[in-house]
Amino acid sequence: MPQLGLLPRRTWVTLLSQLLRPPRAACISAVGCHSQVAEALLTSQPKPHQEKPNFIIKIPKGTRDLSPQQMVVREKILDMVVSCFKRHGAKGLDTPAFELTEMLTEKYEEHSGLMYDLKDQGGELLSLRYDLTVPFARYLAMNKLKKMKRYQVGKVWRRESPTIVQGRYREFCQCDFDIAGHFDPMIPDAECLKIMCEVLSGLQLGDFLIKVNDRRVVDGMFAVCGVPESKFRAICASMDKLDKMSWRDVRHEMVAKKGLAPEVADRIGEYIQCHGGVSLIEQLFQDPRLSQNKQALEGLGDLKLLFEYLTLFGIAEKICFDLSLARGMDYYTGVIYEAVLLQTPAQAGEEPLNVGSVAAGGRYDELVATFDPKGHKVPCVGLSIGIERIFYIVEQRMKNSFKKVRTTETQVFVATPQKNFLRERLKLIAELWDAGIKAEMLYKNNPKLLTQLHYCENTGIPLVVIIGEQEQKEGVIKLRSVASREEVAIKRENLVAEIQKRLSES
Amino acid sequence: MPQLGLLPRRTWVTLLSQLLRPPRAACISAVGCHSQVAEALLTSQPKPHQEKPNFIIKIPKGTRDLSPQQMVVREKILDMVVSCFKRHGAKGLDTPAFELTEMLTEKYEEHSGLMYDLKDQGGELLSLRYDLTVPFARYLAMNKLKKMKRYQVGKVWRRESPTIVQGRYREFCQCDFDIAGHFDPMIPDAECLKIMCEVLSGLQLGDFLIKVNDRRVVDGMFAVCGVPESKFRAICASMDKLDKMSWRDVRHEMVAKKGLAPEVADRIGEYIQCHGGVSLIEQLFQDPRLSQNKQALEGLGDLKLLFEYLTLFGIAEKICFDLSLARGMDYYTGVIYEAVLLQTPAQAGEEPLNVGSVAAGGRYDELVATFDPKGHKVPCVGLSIGIERIFYIVEQRMKNSFKKVRTTETQVFVATPQKNFLRERLKLIAELWDAGIKAEMLYKNNPKLLTQLHYCENTGIPLVVIIGEQEQKEGVIKLRSVASREEVAIKRENLVAEIQKRLSES
Repeated sequence: MPQLGLLPRRTWVTLLSQLLRPPRAACISAVGCHSQVAEALLTSQPKPHQEKPNFIIKIPKGTRDLSPQQMVVREKILDMVVSCFKRHGAKGLDTPAFELTEMLTEKYEEHSGLMYDLKDQGGELLSLRYDLTVPFARYLAMNKLKKMKRYQVGKVWRRESPTIVQGRYREFCQCDFDIAGHFDPMIPDAECLKIMCEVLSGLQLGDFLIKVNDRRVVDGMFAVCGVPESKFRAICASMDKLDKMSWRDVRHEMVAKKGLAPEVADRIGEYIQCHGGVSLIEQLFQDPRLSQNKQALEGLGDLKLLFEYLTLFGIAEKICFDLSLARGMDYYTGVIYEAVLLQTPAQAGEEPLNVGSVAAGGRYDELVATFDPKGHKVPCVGLSIGIERIFYIVEQRMKNSFKKVRTTETQVFVATPQKNFLRERLKLIAELWDAGIKAEMLYKNNPKLLTQLHYCENTGIPLVVIIGEQEQKEGVIKLRSVASREEVAIKRENLVAEIQKRLSES
Repeated sequence: MPQLGLLPRRTWVTLLSQLLRPPRAACISAVGCHSQVAEALLTSQPKPHQEKPNFIIKIPKGTRDLSPQQMVVREKILDMVVSCFKRHGAKGLDTPAFELTEMLTEKYEEHSGLMYDLKDQGGELLSLRYDLTVPFARYLAMNKLKKMKRYQVGKVWRRESPTIVQGRYREFCQCDFDIAGHFDPMIPDAECLKIMCEVLSGLQLGDFLIKVNDRRVVDGMFAVCGVPESKFRAICASMDKLDKMSWRDVRHEMVAKKGLAPEVADRIGEYIQCHGGVSLIEQLFQDPRLSQNKQALEGLGDLKLLFEYLTLFGIAEKICFDLSLARGMDYYTGVIYEAVLLQTPAQAGEEPLNVGSVAAGGRYDELVATFDPKGHKVPCVGLSIGIERIFYIVEQRMKNSFKKVRTTETQVFVATPQKNFLRERLKLIAELWDAGIKAEMLYKNNPKLLTQLHYCENTGIPLVVIIGEQEQKEGVIKLRSVASREEVAIKRENLVAEIQKRLSES
């Protein structure tokens, strides 16, 4: 296929090769603040006054807690993603965290060793879900649903070795959108790519690129290169490692471990250098070997139609047809895609972040049928947003901006400058809560006024209501703006209305 | 304690005893629509044309999928609960679904057999979390936090036998709010009860009652009745079953299984009939036996202060001091509480729903210290909302109202009356999405107009934009209201603005 070697190279090729290295920066977050605490506890010497010197407090390998600061970032991202899914008419769905093991086996072949199994405690054999796609297919088959557009946000679990795949968690959150049903070709597929663009643009993650390929083109390529059909999936799994390993290493795996003839591997090596737009599709239609393969031609035909729709959606320039894209999951049958970030918003002193793939998906037309006793087919296409990597970028950006993130939404603080005003404060704060106002007070009988005002400044509460002897005598409350330190007296009975007015203005 | 037997009985005693029966109605939902499908598959005979006659598709015992309809209800409830938690200044937190088994053992004693353990796959020994309280305590200790007000919403897992505890799931969602830190007595405790009232009122679940007791009063009662200290927790666990079993059966368990002397059990039996308000606290202060017990007096003192604060919060009439309340968890050390629904909104033809406890919690001052190598104490008090039962009530109410629940939020549908308008529709819908408008279209090249309009009526989409030959020629789009069937022509370039205007008005 020498004619394709002449394709003009683009600048993003260099950028891409950088991105394809393991995400070192992300790795740092894997040993976040909580693990450091655990670490400190691990290395600290037991002292004579310790009650439990051998007790080490930690959380499972590859998992983490999300602190309130992190939860704020997480919620912002999830809100953005879910609102995009809803904009495209998706319905919500929830499935159990674990499934019967037999429902999951054979679905992930190359990866099934990475599933978390539950202990046999005298009941069913269960495993934690490995993704949200297989449970969705199981749900469709079990309820005999022939079409559905659904989204699901939830945790999945994979026993990946942190030393091999750096910066990945064993428990992580996925946001999935899928369209199931018999429809005209490439219309739902194009919408999935549109959604990926909307999410990545909406999160302002910087420039990105979505690599697209088709499993039929991959298989056709394997066939014309001389890969025996029995080795398609194994070679495909090797190819999927191109974002973590060089072609040299992948080729070695194909030849030494998977028993591929070296010349076959080299033929694959030529094809997978090809990437481009619609013109590459046209060129491959003319490729003397590939054009002889029915499957490949079908895939190329669909890709051509897909690019037409992507142009109508105004996103064609974000999409790159890339023959090196393979996708790990066995269940894909048609179009596959993967979004990579090309750069992050450059900021002074910020290290470049290599985060790799942040969203991916594809068409899986046979998966539902594997769950159906009669083998009824429900074609599906979907995508999954990799929240952890996006989370890491947004979190870093917020850290670098030095802006303090509020972890609460409290609007009003109830304070007193005098002793023995607990009962008044309790009555007052209950009034605010009952009016739907977000309010806090200190859980002290007699707190100092300065402590109370400091609390407001530290936690970003904008308003303080102050009740003391003088105010009580006059039947008023002082309302103080924390930012301007201005105070005004307000009639006790007008307090709620005045606060609501102020909050609606801000 | 005969003087207490003379207390006036209230009408809700009868109601309560009804509620204390196992929730039969809720049990029906445990075998919801999905399980029925599985059932149907189970009983269907394999036919010759079936490809996998022995394949039975099902989900794990005690779990369920949440359908889009159910997800809408679930989200409404969770939004209400979380907004209440935020109104009280709580920060979000997330912890892993599983913990190291050693972090959880000894925390649940009587219940630890109900934990889901993960299979030993050559790493750490792990178990799925049993509640959100122990992970919160572990988080505080691990990060050496001395105070925190946090909420957490998440699934927990318990291997409860559905035949013993009817209507309960093995996977279920909890919504927790907790206040950790050294504060003046009963202020955070009173706020927890206020939150329970706000949530239960806000969800309009009908009349409710919160039973309150104190572990020190329970232990003091055990002591003065003659229970050996070594049997306190075991007898407490028996007492906790009073909401599922009669006193007769609980007494039998205490005597026959836990080896309690019959006269000791009878003394307990007298005390646990007591329930009332502040006057009962005063009476118990005078109780010849209980007043000799230091622990009991401490508990009664705190309860008295608590009722004072509850009165200031305006919720005292919702709270009932009830000596029969024990709470199952071993970690409680002070005030304990449990909310029960007294009735559901009566509707014609609606069966009475017996759902039992819908929210509960208490003070646990020693739990964090069990995680700390130096045994540092962080006093905590909190509550947990039992979403599944509330969910069942709200779901039933919505079913009975016969109102159709929309499972999508789509605002505009893009339709065409002619063939070969796919490309126009794609361009148009992308414009709407990019303007943030929730829009759908059919994934067909040439759908029938009637099919498209039916889709809008069935799914509740309020607006349709129609593009055809005539419109294209005139540079307009037809905007149709689904409800009124009125159509107006709008200039193509004004479409987005016009739709946004209409949506903001509605």
